[in-house]
Amino acid sequence: MKNPVAAFAAFGILTLGSVAAAQDTAALPVTIVIHGGAGALAPGRYTPAKEAQFIAKLNEALDAGYAILEDGGAALDAVEAAIVTMEDSPLFNSGKGAVFTRDGKNELDASIMDGATLNAGAVTGVTTVKNPIRLAREVMENSVHVMFAGNGADKFAEQQGLEIVEPEYFYTEHRWKSYEEALKREKEQKDSAISHDFKYGTVGAVALDASGNLAAGTSTGGMTLKNFGRVGDTPIIGAGTFADNKSCAVSSTGHGEYFIRLTIARDICAQVEYAGKTVEDAAKDVIHGRLETLGGGGGVIVLGADGAFAMVFNTPGMFRGVKSASGVNTTAIYGD
Amino acid sequence: MKNPVAAFAAFGILTLGSVAAAQDTAALPVTIVIHGGAGALAPGRYTPAKEAQFIAKLNEALDAGYAILEDGGAALDAVEAAIVTMEDSPLFNSGKGAVFTRDGKNELDASIMDGATLNAGAVTGVTTVKNPIRLAREVMENSVHVMFAGNGADKFAEQQGLEIVEPEYFYTEHRWKSYEEALKREKEQKDSAISHDFKYGTVGAVALDASGNLAAGTSTGGMTLKNFGRVGDTPIIGAGTFADNKSCAVSSTGHGEYFIRLTIARDICAQVEYAGKTVEDAAKDVIHGRLETLGGGGGVIVLGADGAFAMVFNTPGMFRGVKSASGVNTTAIYGD
Repeated sequence: MKNPVAAFAAFGILTLGSVAAAQDTAALPVTIVIHGGAGALAPGRYTPAKEAQFIAKLNEALDAGYAILEDGGAALDAVEAAIVTMEDSPLFNSGKGAVFTRDGKNELDASIMDGATLNAGAVTGVTTVKNPIRLAREVMENSVHVMFAGNGADKFAEQQGLEIVEPEYFYTEHRWKSYEEALKREKEQKDSAISHDFKYGTVGAVALDASGNLAAGTSTGGMTLKNFGRVGDTPIIGAGTFADNKSCAVSSTGHGEYFIRLTIARDICAQVEYAGKTVEDAAKDVIHGRLETLGGGGGVIVLGADGAFAMVFNTPGMFRGVKSASGVNTTAIYGD
Repeated sequence: MKNPVAAFAAFGILTLGSVAAAQDTAALPVTIVIHGGAGALAPGRYTPAKEAQFIAKLNEALDAGYAILEDGGAALDAVEAAIVTMEDSPLFNSGKGAVFTRDGKNELDASIMDGATLNAGAVTGVTTVKNPIRLAREVMENSVHVMFAGNGADKFAEQQGLEIVEPEYFYTEHRWKSYEEALKREKEQKDSAISHDFKYGTVGAVALDASGNLAAGTSTGGMTLKNFGRVGDTPIIGAGTFADNKSCAVSSTGHGEYFIRLTIARDICAQVEYAGKTVEDAAKDVIHGRLETLGGGGGVIVLGADGAFAMVFNTPGMFRGVKSASGVNTTAIYGD
């Protein structure tokens, strides 16, 4: 998927026509923005050593995506690469290190969208695919459908030859402890712990490539103690993920039920498209206005077709990072 | 859920204050709009006797919903009643009479949304619930989640005491024949018949009640030959169903993959909310503009907070009907 013009440009062996093309390319503000989930992330929550691990992994994900963009590659590829990096890390609630459902299992959701074509792919309740974001892309590119649920999604992954793992692959000790603690807390409080325990650790990425195309993707292990078959916002196009070159690309993280009801990703892009708002104003309206009015918590990363971006959340913190045409990585965990 | 003020008003036993309330109520344009699916419905497709059956059932659904609205009842109840009427009829592709998946099974989807609170409920891949729209409402009102998939949805239905049926309940001879024909056609053409065979028979309703609240709901048996686990637009809030008192209520029918990618229901309401369009102009932009640009087919019913409505489709026909404050039913099958 690499752009050979840009690759050659790096070696200075282009003809005149190609140089012009490479210069146009270089002028465009390629950018990648990522998140690793929003939640009760206040200073002091993690040791400095643990914070450093998170920051290092965010930088690794940014670099993986940005390298593709810098090389003239597609926004979709950059989004996928950044998300795979975070899925493979036990630090985040996606892929390896996913949280446990009420039944003590890992059920994974993911979605991806191409802002150039409005093609999209989504999976929910996947249990055997190492990288759910890759499966979402496979659904987008190699099926007549947009979304698959449960065993149907796993079956499709196998048919398409994606990497399959045993359920144990997703297990981590710290998520299992969280699960046991949540069960205990629920018992003691005699009410549902679910609403108090919304996820942090969902991962997502939005990117703008040198061709001016936007893409967005999101991947999650869902909610600790979620009931069997619950579908959150991550696999819902328009809620967890949306991308349209006409407006913006969004990836969400938070208490998914509110994000579905508010069609948060689509609403932000609709405000940009129809009300002429900046991505920042649109994101603030949705997160600090509508989401808070309903009592929900979470955050979004948004990237406009012009390279303007926003990282907005109403939780104490959100794992996040951006790498734009300056080539400098900026990462953060806590609120400003 | 009935409004006692309006009910008493019918008997003329109100105090002065209550009369005023009842008059305010009566002045509001209660309206219900329904669809029974869009598709290759050209004149001559059905015998006059069959057409009469469809029209009679559409009228029955309109009357069931309107009776509730006229009585001061809630838009949500009207939407549910109209949809249950169509789910129980083998004429439409929802509940009894659903189409068959590739595996020769019936997998049902439904969703419902309350425009007053933005509460929503959705289920996908349900196989044992007689009325999926009732399950969607149960999810909305009695779970902490918004959406359930597959066995998890069926399990929740059982827990909540909804009416459960054997899979055979959904069987109809004519849908089985369609399934066998689709399989045969696919074999002969050596390509997928799915994309040529988008559904007609999905059902939906939108309503505006005397309190000024909007609601929307949609229910479907999906696509003939759909692959195991495929999720269409019907259970996706923002694609198949959306309602917000600030803008409008929408129920969609058509080739679901396009409706998900375009977040059709949310987009129509966003154009009303942010671009100040009429429901008709917004629906036309989305169906005749965006949907056709992508190559998709289908239709929508839309109802604004002011009672203005639109029934827009780019297929030859759409089963549809409306009953507004005039109390007159209007129904149609083919294009104008």
